[in-house]
Amino acid sequence: MMEIEQLWEEIDSRVACLPARQTGLMQALHRAAAEDILSPGEFPAFDHSSMDGFAFSSVQPGRCRVTGTIAAGRPLPLQVASGTAVRILTGACIPEGTAAIARQEDCAVEGEDVSLSPGARIAFGENIRRRGGVFRKGDILVRSGTAITPGAIALLASVGVRSLKVTGPASVLHLVTGDEVVGSATSLLPGQIHDSNGPMISALLADMGLAAESRHVPDDGDSLVNRVRETPADLLLISGGAGPGERDHALDALKSAGYAIHSSRLNSRPGKPLIFATKGPGIAFGLPGNPLSHWVCFQVFVKRAILRLHGLPVPEMLGTRMSAKIAPSRDGRRTWTPGAWDSGSGRVRPLPWKHSGDLTPLVDANALILDPTDEGTARMLIL
Amino acid sequence: MMEIEQLWEEIDSRVACLPARQTGLMQALHRAAAEDILSPGEFPAFDHSSMDGFAFSSVQPGRCRVTGTIAAGRPLPLQVASGTAVRILTGACIPEGTAAIARQEDCAVEGEDVSLSPGARIAFGENIRRRGGVFRKGDILVRSGTAITPGAIALLASVGVRSLKVTGPASVLHLVTGDEVVGSATSLLPGQIHDSNGPMISALLADMGLAAESRHVPDDGDSLVNRVRETPADLLLISGGAGPGERDHALDALKSAGYAIHSSRLNSRPGKPLIFATKGPGIAFGLPGNPLSHWVCFQVFVKRAILRLHGLPVPEMLGTRMSAKIAPSRDGRRTWTPGAWDSGSGRVRPLPWKHSGDLTPLVDANALILDPTDEGTARMLIL
Repeated sequence: MMEIEQLWEEIDSRVACLPARQTGLMQALHRAAAEDILSPGEFPAFDHSSMDGFAFSSVQPGRCRVTGTIAAGRPLPLQVASGTAVRILTGACIPEGTAAIARQEDCAVEGEDVSLSPGARIAFGENIRRRGGVFRKGDILVRSGTAITPGAIALLASVGVRSLKVTGPASVLHLVTGDEVVGSATSLLPGQIHDSNGPMISALLADMGLAAESRHVPDDGDSLVNRVRETPADLLLISGGAGPGERDHALDALKSAGYAIHSSRLNSRPGKPLIFATKGPGIAFGLPGNPLSHWVCFQVFVKRAILRLHGLPVPEMLGTRMSAKIAPSRDGRRTWTPGAWDSGSGRVRPLPWKHSGDLTPLVDANALILDPTDEGTARMLIL
Repeated sequence: MMEIEQLWEEIDSRVACLPARQTGLMQALHRAAAEDILSPGEFPAFDHSSMDGFAFSSVQPGRCRVTGTIAAGRPLPLQVASGTAVRILTGACIPEGTAAIARQEDCAVEGEDVSLSPGARIAFGENIRRRGGVFRKGDILVRSGTAITPGAIALLASVGVRSLKVTGPASVLHLVTGDEVVGSATSLLPGQIHDSNGPMISALLADMGLAAESRHVPDDGDSLVNRVRETPADLLLISGGAGPGERDHALDALKSAGYAIHSSRLNSRPGKPLIFATKGPGIAFGLPGNPLSHWVCFQVFVKRAILRLHGLPVPEMLGTRMSAKIAPSRDGRRTWTPGAWDSGSGRVRPLPWKHSGDLTPLVDANALILDPTDEGTARMLIL
């Protein structure tokens, strides 16, 4: 029986980063940069004013005639000569001959003339943002391995980056076994149940920016082997049939298709029959078909493998206090309990399930609790 | 000058939930249920076995002849008569006449017969999951106002719910002003800059499951007024022109288009010129065009309005400790600093920006810090 931490180590050591792909800026959201992203030019690209005000040719300008106005996006061939000033708006190019920009609230306008207000001072270069003052061409904007956040998108857009090399996305195939399982559009015949694992996995993957292909496979060994053999995917998930029963075909199908099995019996409740297998760079999990077990195994193990495929950091278990006690395991079987974690108090509220058919706690769960103690502490995985 | 908390109160009181829409299950992900979602039937829909084992007609069965096998999804017209047993697999219908299911590991098979292993016992109804044992028809599955998580999708799919009433999504229009601002596909002429607010807002909205329409508007008052008047949206965002300058048209455009202005001067750095306005159920923000200010105003105020439109809870400010000190404001202007919050230690690391053109801290920021004290505590908004 493998321990949870051992399986994490197996995943970390066996799942490698996917190859880099050149991707449009918006499609890179939440992917990891696959190389250092460099500034393609100077930023700002030109000297400009950081304020609405007046451009003077001297820091002691006296009374100056205003010869024109320059606004952002309206490059005018203006110069600032001695004894003159140019009205300038935020973001506008700095006219030739400018010593400094005085903020308009520091200026006094009389007719066509402007001077500094009594007591106001300006220093050379004041309120001028210089070309290249933020980034020089070739400066690193985003380091390799960094997740592309909306803020990173804004940063890259501001310097004109339109595409970049990122890792992934992984292709995922979800094979749903179980002759009793039918899609939601079908009315149930006696003995049939609706598939909930397909929609669950689609939604979980959507939260990671991935689209899953979910397909139903009949409960005979050959159909599953053929599907596994035929369909290449970076990540293969088999729903159901992970156990040792006579109609459990996942293990045999993976072996027949050439996968090496790294784990098939785990000290985890739920998740005991979880299978982890690889074939070259391909990753496969055989997941228990029970929806609770399916959800836990995805959150704890599959998500970690996807983060590894995508070159993103994997989450750590955190120490926590529970707002209500749950009994420690007495039989050595380590048990996951869904929890509602409150980032304000730092505490987690256990949401125990009544039995393995009760999906209600999943509605509100944002954490999974492990190893509760009699003292009310536990470890927790934030989802 | 309005305080930050006053503007939050304005948003909370003036932004109402959008009307409910009937939506397919997968499209409901991360929306709020707009009514209690009820179970359309009994769950489980039929009595079934929770184990692989044998169905006996008595809890003291003796040696029984195995008359057949029943698997999940294969309803066979089997009965369990006295002195006989049926091999049954997990999820299979319970044959008529069954008193209990014995787990296969508690049974001894000899030829065509089966009996309980020495010392094994079964109770009446053991390992049988009863029809309606989890939900009865009409039971509440998800309460009104609850966000539809992947777990909720699984729960609803398991009982055959294919569509539900949810709130939103909001339609969002993002108008980018600034004659100097051009799209990423355009080479820059002197004095021009690339639009970063459009991609930023698209990415931030994508994280909320929303698509933004972003359009550039020339820097004259009439174009903006016409755009604001012509284009209905639940949420209108104007980028740039929020200040009191002569080329700042946002306030006048909103007034001319019939919006009531609730705030236009805020004690927030960045964010001082932020405009909040409403027209009937329509919401508008005039956001500073500086990308840092734009990002902060979205995170602190616009996101809150979207959560309100969607009937979702708004975040609370949390007390925190900083892993490095930042100076408290000395001039009464309350200042937001981006932070990298670590859920493990509960501490936040300030990521100060060098100046208002430096977007680098946005790459890693997952929190915004407010009101730092000399003691190293602060308040924090988790993003």
